[in-house]
Amino acid sequence: MELEGQQAPDLSLDMGVVRQLLTGFLRDESQNAGFTKAVLGLSGGVDSAVCAYLAVEALGAENVLGVFMPFRTSNPESRRHAEMVAGCVGLRTEVVDITPMVDPLLTSQTIVDPLRRGNVMARARMIVLYDLSSRDSALVFGTSNKTELLLGYGTLFGDTACALNPLGDLYKTQVWQLARYLDVPQEIIEKQPSADLWEGQTDEAEMGIRYAQADRLLSSLVDQRRTGEELVAAGWDKALVQRVQDMVRKNQFKRRPPVIAKISGRTINVDFRYPRDWGV
Amino acid sequence: MELEGQQAPDLSLDMGVVRQLLTGFLRDESQNAGFTKAVLGLSGGVDSAVCAYLAVEALGAENVLGVFMPFRTSNPESRRHAEMVAGCVGLRTEVVDITPMVDPLLTSQTIVDPLRRGNVMARARMIVLYDLSSRDSALVFGTSNKTELLLGYGTLFGDTACALNPLGDLYKTQVWQLARYLDVPQEIIEKQPSADLWEGQTDEAEMGIRYAQADRLLSSLVDQRRTGEELVAAGWDKALVQRVQDMVRKNQFKRRPPVIAKISGRTINVDFRYPRDWGV
Repeated sequence: MELEGQQAPDLSLDMGVVRQLLTGFLRDESQNAGFTKAVLGLSGGVDSAVCAYLAVEALGAENVLGVFMPFRTSNPESRRHAEMVAGCVGLRTEVVDITPMVDPLLTSQTIVDPLRRGNVMARARMIVLYDLSSRDSALVFGTSNKTELLLGYGTLFGDTACALNPLGDLYKTQVWQLARYLDVPQEIIEKQPSADLWEGQTDEAEMGIRYAQADRLLSSLVDQRRTGEELVAAGWDKALVQRVQDMVRKNQFKRRPPVIAKISGRTINVDFRYPRDWGV
Repeated sequence: MELEGQQAPDLSLDMGVVRQLLTGFLRDESQNAGFTKAVLGLSGGVDSAVCAYLAVEALGAENVLGVFMPFRTSNPESRRHAEMVAGCVGLRTEVVDITPMVDPLLTSQTIVDPLRRGNVMARARMIVLYDLSSRDSALVFGTSNKTELLLGYGTLFGDTACALNPLGDLYKTQVWQLARYLDVPQEIIEKQPSADLWEGQTDEAEMGIRYAQADRLLSSLVDQRRTGEELVAAGWDKALVQRVQDMVRKNQFKRRPPVIAKISGRTINVDFRYPRDWGV
């Protein structure tokens, strides 16, 4: 099923270095953009927990706002875990229930498909976070990890929307490593990852692959630039490799800006693409 | 105030060529992404009118859905103009009132600032369009023009969110030229551009510059790569040039994807950025 020995990608990182790099990233990039404050969604999961720890270390607890945004069907445990994180790092929290924003659309459009419902919820949370970022002159910090971003397990203009993302180049198993290093409560690290859109939902069941396996496979394909054929020859299941490659390709649109038809000599996002903090 | 003669940028285009190029763009890019249908927001304004004309020409009227999304305070004339466009090109329309989604947040968070209110509305419309695109297996076509995109006169993850944008490389005055060429109703072309967020709002009053002037200035700076000093020497008002340059720079974040902290050898949006339809 997997690469062995020297061929298997090593996903362990020096977490002391990673922590320094990521807090420095959040501090420097915020400063370059002219901001001292941040706002982030606290879901109760490990990704937003790690992001909160890093944000507080980078900007100070008084400059970070954690927002818990339950929907009517959210697991009460999510809130307990979000509060646990806030308590550990001492950040301010606000609770904004998205149910009154979401239900009118779900009802009027008769949206029953869980995927469509989940996208509406993720985007409603984006609206809340961006509004609070405007109110507080704060940047939105994102919490999507590399596994989710590559497999497209996230909502475009929803949970993937942010100004700065400290976790987007860490696979889920690396986020867990970092969480342990940062002393995130064990209970949060060990629970089954879930988007908490319906009872019993888990990421791994929904994606049809375990994170440990997905991360080794994605790292082989993306970071080591190995081909599907090489991985099959090394013992990976052919259908699985194909499925993961398809997921990465089909979700590329979520990782790139809108495509603008080129007319002029200098087109936005084609010839005109300075860094976000260009000249600031 | 302005460049004269040879130095003034010529914003006239061969609209026959532009029309062909843009309908070809919409047709080819949709096909590459595996889609035959499109959905777009019809505001009653000239940008969405032109986008609707192009979309219908590219994909056929039966494959284009125009969505009118009023808020409680929207000008009734907007709806009449949206229906006029739909009638001219024969596309299907749906009306989704965003008031029931938007009001609960405006009320619970006591959002009175017009900018924050406008952003919430623009993002609520994005939610509706993306949900319908999922329901219908359609791509979202965007309607932001180059003037708006450069000056940042649009909402990130709101009206600027789309899969394909045929107008993003045309200045507003060029959109007007194209509208005339396509025989968009005179009434729509000649009315004052407005985001219609409150009564009497106009783009030009809000941006503090007229489109005709903004377009010449932006084109000199961006397309002709002239410096602010050169433009001032050629007779442009120094404060105006500075203000427009600031607007372009300060809004760069709206035109670029979220910034991901780099850890690995292949980071999303840094080393890993194939086209959106890569390998499809």
